Amino acid sequence: MRFSIKTKGLNDIIDITDEVSEIVKKSEAKDGICLISCPGSTCGITTMEYESGLIKDLKRALERMAPVSDDYEHCKKWGDCNGFSHVRSALLKPFLAIPIENEELLLGSWQQVVFLDFDNRPRNREIIVKVIKS
Amino acid sequence: MRFSIKTKGLNDIIDITDEVSEIVKKSEAKDGICLISCPGSTCGITTMEYESGLIKDLKRALERMAPVSDDYEHCKKWGDCNGFSHVRSALLKPFLAIPIENEELLLGSWQQVVFLDFDNRPRNREIIVKVIKS
Amino acid sequence: MRFSIKTKGLNDIIDITDEVSEIVKKSEAKDGICLISCPGSTCGITTMEYESGLIKDLKRALERMAPVSDDYEHCKKWGDCNGFSHVRSALLKPFLAIPIENEELLLGSWQQVVFLDFDNRPRNREIIVKVIKS
Repeated sequence: MRFSIKTKGLNDIIDITDEVSEIVKKSEAKDGICLISCPGSTCGITTMEYESGLIKDLKRALERMAPVSDDYEHCKKWGDCNGFSHVRSALLKPFLAIPIENEELLLGSWQQVVFLDFDNRPRNREIIVKVIKS
Repeated sequence: MRFSIKTKGLNDIIDITDEVSEIVKKSEAKDGICLISCPGSTCGITTMEYESGLIKDLKRALERMAPVSDDYEHCKKWGDCNGFSHVRSALLKPFLAIPIENEELLLGSWQQVVFLDFDNRPRNREIIVKVIKS
Repeated sequence: MRFSIKTKGLNDIIDITDEVSEIVKKSEAKDGICLISCPGSTCGITTMEYESGLIKDLKRALERMAPVSDDYEHCKKWGDCNGFSHVRSALLKPFLAIPIENEELLLGSWQQVVFLDFDNRPRNREIIVKVIKS
């Protein structure tokens, strides 16, 4: 199953828990795992408490790991100045596997599934959700 | 399957290889994968050579990625001064999938499964282990 | 299924997409997931656009996260001066799950599966690929 989202780029962090949960519900999986991914090399998927303070805090940590305005070889070579987007994606990875029970994701009360668009422009992104029953 | 552990918080790193291996053994899976996770937004799961030197080295690297005493928006907003715990968890992720053969995790000789409690206080944590046979 | 690769160590980054894709093809999986891993505590697996500029950019970010010549406890204790290799591996993790459709990995056009050998010497590495059909 798949769904699409529109992003603003530049580390736009989007809560996709509802969309994923709906697919898990429809799968009628009593027990298993769910793999969420996005085909692309400038994005990431993880979980976090989705609140505006932490969104800023996470962005600051990502800036420390791969600063937007560092001197990227990718930019020099291709004129495509999203070197930071690629590096952040390789470090965070656009793949996440979550356990399922009774048609629901097993997450904490303050834990949401988030998609991070590291690219330097707005994008339409397709999110892939695979449910594997055990 | 699940098991519980008590942690000290503040980047307590705990070897959970034996507990996970026991569940994999009981599953009688000849071939497949095992997903280990913890519902929560202030913890992580990975593998490492579990020895006291590297435990200190990993903690120093985590401090570099998201310092304990940085100026977190999460703290200003909620008075809950574990912003670093949340950011470390979003970067490391509390999910790990490992292959299984003959009822055993396929790991290296010097590679253990570890749970990292980034929270700023002791916690009881529930670890979820899903075995998917192939 | 497994395959072997020879690496140069010191953050050698190798494109393993073809080898993994061939195994996925042979599995004849119409739908499912693929778990790629390497038993070891000094390596990592992720995806990236595999081009020489970004390879350098990613290496620089890894050097920021866990510098080669930092003062590692692991080195003091064991005389084994690959503390940075272990820390990078714990942060990046040598495990990656990717969705499959019609006997193919679901990746972006500019997204390759890469193996990172963080160790400080050339190694022979065995890559494990598990295909789980849904």
